Amino acid sequence: MGLFRARGVVYKPVENVDLGPDSDEFYLQANVKAPRMAGFLVKIFAWFLESRVFGTFLLYILKRNNLIHKLVTNAELKESPVYVPMHPFEELNEQEVKHIDSGLSPSEQVQQAINCLPLPSEKIVNGLKPSFRRWTIMDYYKAYSSGEITPCMVAEQLVTAIRESSSPPMDMAFFINYDAEDILRQAKESTRRYGRGEPISALDGVPIAIKDEIDCSPYPTTGGTKWLHKFRSCKGDACCVMRLKSCGAVIIGKTNMHELGAGTSGINPHYGATRNPYNPGMISGGSSSGSAAVVAAGLCPVALGVDGGGSVRMPAALCGVVGFKTNFRACTSLWCSSSELDSWDGRSISSYAAINGPLPSHETSAIPLPKVYFPLLQSTNSVSNVILARYGEWFSDCGDDIRTCCSQALHQLSEKFGWKTVDVTIPDIESMRLAHYLTIGSECTAALSSYLEKLDNAESGWDLRVALCVYGSFSGEEYIKAQKLRSRQMQFHRNIFTKADVIVTPTVGVTAYPIFDDALKTGELDYINGAALVRYQIAGNFLGLPAVSVPVGYDKNGLPIGLQFIGRPWSEPTLIHIAYAMQSLCVSKYRKPQVFYDLLKID
Amino acid sequence: MGLFRARGVVYKPVENVDLGPDSDEFYLQANVKAPRMAGFLVKIFAWFLESRVFGTFLLYILKRNNLIHKLVTNAELKESPVYVPMHPFEELNEQEVKHIDSGLSPSEQVQQAINCLPLPSEKIVNGLKPSFRRWTIMDYYKAYSSGEITPCMVAEQLVTAIRESSSPPMDMAFFINYDAEDILRQAKESTRRYGRGEPISALDGVPIAIKDEIDCSPYPTTGGTKWLHKFRSCKGDACCVMRLKSCGAVIIGKTNMHELGAGTSGINPHYGATRNPYNPGMISGGSSSGSAAVVAAGLCPVALGVDGGGSVRMPAALCGVVGFKTNFRACTSLWCSSSELDSWDGRSISSYAAINGPLPSHETSAIPLPKVYFPLLQSTNSVSNVILARYGEWFSDCGDDIRTCCSQALHQLSEKFGWKTVDVTIPDIESMRLAHYLTIGSECTAALSSYLEKLDNAESGWDLRVALCVYGSFSGEEYIKAQKLRSRQMQFHRNIFTKADVIVTPTVGVTAYPIFDDALKTGELDYINGAALVRYQIAGNFLGLPAVSVPVGYDKNGLPIGLQFIGRPWSEPTLIHIAYAMQSLCVSKYRKPQVFYDLLKID
Repeated sequence: MGLFRARGVVYKPVENVDLGPDSDEFYLQANVKAPRMAGFLVKIFAWFLESRVFGTFLLYILKRNNLIHKLVTNAELKESPVYVPMHPFEELNEQEVKHIDSGLSPSEQVQQAINCLPLPSEKIVNGLKPSFRRWTIMDYYKAYSSGEITPCMVAEQLVTAIRESSSPPMDMAFFINYDAEDILRQAKESTRRYGRGEPISALDGVPIAIKDEIDCSPYPTTGGTKWLHKFRSCKGDACCVMRLKSCGAVIIGKTNMHELGAGTSGINPHYGATRNPYNPGMISGGSSSGSAAVVAAGLCPVALGVDGGGSVRMPAALCGVVGFKTNFRACTSLWCSSSELDSWDGRSISSYAAINGPLPSHETSAIPLPKVYFPLLQSTNSVSNVILARYGEWFSDCGDDIRTCCSQALHQLSEKFGWKTVDVTIPDIESMRLAHYLTIGSECTAALSSYLEKLDNAESGWDLRVALCVYGSFSGEEYIKAQKLRSRQMQFHRNIFTKADVIVTPTVGVTAYPIFDDALKTGELDYINGAALVRYQIAGNFLGLPAVSVPVGYDKNGLPIGLQFIGRPWSEPTLIHIAYAMQSLCVSKYRKPQVFYDLLKID
Repeated sequence: MGLFRARGVVYKPVENVDLGPDSDEFYLQANVKAPRMAGFLVKIFAWFLESRVFGTFLLYILKRNNLIHKLVTNAELKESPVYVPMHPFEELNEQEVKHIDSGLSPSEQVQQAINCLPLPSEKIVNGLKPSFRRWTIMDYYKAYSSGEITPCMVAEQLVTAIRESSSPPMDMAFFINYDAEDILRQAKESTRRYGRGEPISALDGVPIAIKDEIDCSPYPTTGGTKWLHKFRSCKGDACCVMRLKSCGAVIIGKTNMHELGAGTSGINPHYGATRNPYNPGMISGGSSSGSAAVVAAGLCPVALGVDGGGSVRMPAALCGVVGFKTNFRACTSLWCSSSELDSWDGRSISSYAAINGPLPSHETSAIPLPKVYFPLLQSTNSVSNVILARYGEWFSDCGDDIRTCCSQALHQLSEKFGWKTVDVTIPDIESMRLAHYLTIGSECTAALSSYLEKLDNAESGWDLRVALCVYGSFSGEEYIKAQKLRSRQMQFHRNIFTKADVIVTPTVGVTAYPIFDDALKTGELDYINGAALVRYQIAGNFLGLPAVSVPVGYDKNGLPIGLQFIGRPWSEPTLIHIAYAMQSLCVSKYRKPQVFYDLLKID
């Protein structure tokens, strides 16, 4: 293969790389060589890839053209591989963070967190009148506690709303599964508790949706596929779901997702393309598409997703809600057992939230327990003197409206709070994107191999079939090289975090793009838009860092734009402070989506 | 490839596996399907493997036939992968271990260790008169200190012996490089120091050989190849060498090894097949062939090797000397920088020793420093109540003489010291062997890729060419599955170590086998003997455990037999106690090799 052999990049030793603003490190824009495909073209492409002879050759060409050989396979770098983005837990020394007592029960923890809340949701932040805001958990709790509204009343409206949005002509494809009776039953129990004056916690009666990748009885766990649940029955609740239930939350169903989380558009050939509440002709982003969309559409104040490569933050940005990704191993227990989870690179359960929503995640593994159980509720006091690291190239390598809007938001932060921005250079993010893709692809293949072996290809969507071919195509050598790149990036980021508290990026490089008809049945391959979406996501997963996406405005078509903050290891409290601060500045701009259900406005 | 697809093993959850003696776990003997090849056949085989089309197919068949698909690739197992066999350092609570003060200089440490020595080397152990024994470091030190003999006298004899053994008709191929002038210069300096009554340490003037994989000026580091030193110049001493020099040791040269450490026979097509001092028609084992052989032949009391898959312990067993492998990361710094080392699965610098030889290893990485710098000197008091774990099948799955001899040795240990043996079952060692092979192969490919890329195939020996084809053939998925098997085995071994202090095995399954003429130029592929050699080695590397091989007797042809003790993480002191105890029982049996230089008998 001499003719085809791409010269590998020779990476400089980390200590010789200048991370300052005037660094001569070249910013490599993603140069994806794979045209959009849908319909018949995807089928042909999948068939070729699945054939042993053509497939091997085609994969080689694809990997070469898309710089995998140059940036990973044949790269020269000296770092020793780091296989797991583990960070020793550090108690952050933050002035005003109150820690929730981890000895308390889940519901007591929620209560303790609520007692810290400095912002009653009625209050208009910083004198800005919100043009539009979604109901939060506290709004529900207050409405229920006052007796004006009961969980049953909300649940009835909710069931109607879910039915309407799930059927023609709307066909929003928010859910893969919901059980109206189960919703009403839970609401009835909650209503009774409020009736007795004994709600379990502030979550009592609050509707919450769960991504269909997380085990949650009485539903099967499909992972967005037609087959996963056949091989693997759901034998109970994932721990995060168990906790939510123990707090009295009303689980409203399993949300739609990109099939097996293997894509970023949220176009699922089996359960429909999740439509964006701000414009149902557009994608919601993925893979946790339904979870972002239901929060955006007002069906619940919070929903759970899973973020293995931006899968929570991307749809959050596209749907105009907050998306929060916890530190690696801050919470486990998905549809996969926690051990399976560990083998999917840097995934964590994460949440979407309307303003002020809590993050009910928790920890089951043997990793030291961070005290970040309910961070969105936990740390709401303002933080002074945050230093933001900003890489100028990232604010160019995105749509014009995104650039303007994100830069404005950043400017406002510094104006209003006096936070300093330092300019930095963060090299090789395109290499990191490829290394992460290669890693999560290989790990996904290893984790699912026993199912895939028994599976008839025809049971998977066409875009997943293509993805699985690529996922399985990486060598052990490539996998190890990718881990060397991880080691390198961990050192870069450690360096950046000596100069700044958070790294700020546009969450995604594009806003929601159209759902074309040809994609509905076959799925769609659009690696160009895909790369633009994940561009700034990867550090969160590959390096195990917490991150949050906050809505900061809209493009000229009224589609939401998100700003992302990536924090130090275990710095969730800081991120939450920042998210609150950011929202308080943007709340006056928030717009109501085209599809919106105002569940607390009952009359 | 449906037709070819091998059904994968479904591994039971660890907690359901019975590790007791009556376990129903099936013992799978290695079933290597690869006939011995040498001469023209190896060339043909290498050409086929290197061709892209045939090669892919052939590798697939090879991997399938040799159970890699069944035991690794398509296996089902739930454990999360463990990529690095790291164990938190535990200060072992051993009654009689004295720790060397790590704040001291290397030479002071040697002195402190010597002060602990309970066994003056003249003393006849346990009343048994040794029929034969090699000179130890202490013998040299005493002879030099008494003034009877000087380092110069030894060095002159030594140079003559090296020259003789390196030339026809002997052609022992012990060394890749030695510099007579450099040896004499070092000896002269040492002699001067003794003359002034100021030896630096007990190592002063002691001849020590270094495997040609460890950086040691003034020599290039060939790794047994004809090309490594062209790409990578030796820029100074590895830390272990630096330490030896700072103690006054006389470095006598760079020992021969299997090319790139990629085989177990020690037959090197470029530098000759290292011949066994007990029978020059036989192999010495590998990859650290020369280091074991020079100690066996009396050229030095200690030599350094590198053990990545038994490469120290196997030749130790075949050459009738002690071979010691330290805990993973107990010492680093090879020819590769320490970061490169980290990417070679479970390698550690280790040593061969005549009776009572020290182990001058040390630590350069950031890993917590164990206090095992000079363990062979450090902990020489007897240990009471050692519990040995023995897996019956392992004492069957080896040559008859090995079985008898090892069982006798074990019996003696229990007779003389009252140590208890518990019978256990350790499942899946064949799976572990394959998983480790796949791991170290992939890591070797990743570590060397930038050199291999520039390399003309013709510069490598034929057996290395074959090995490199196989090493590069593993997928990311296979690599990850191998790490899951590692996790599983770590749990098994942790369990075993709750019941016993050490695991005892025959070091290797066969004794030294013949060097055939057809192998001399092309190298030899003999995976059947190879598997028999490495059979019991892998836990040391794949799980990062320390281990020691001790000579316990000879087969009917007079070829040495070794018994291996595998210890808990960081239990080097225990292993040294045991090695001393074992030797004290076997010393009466020790025989002189056919090739032996008695350097202290100068008259």
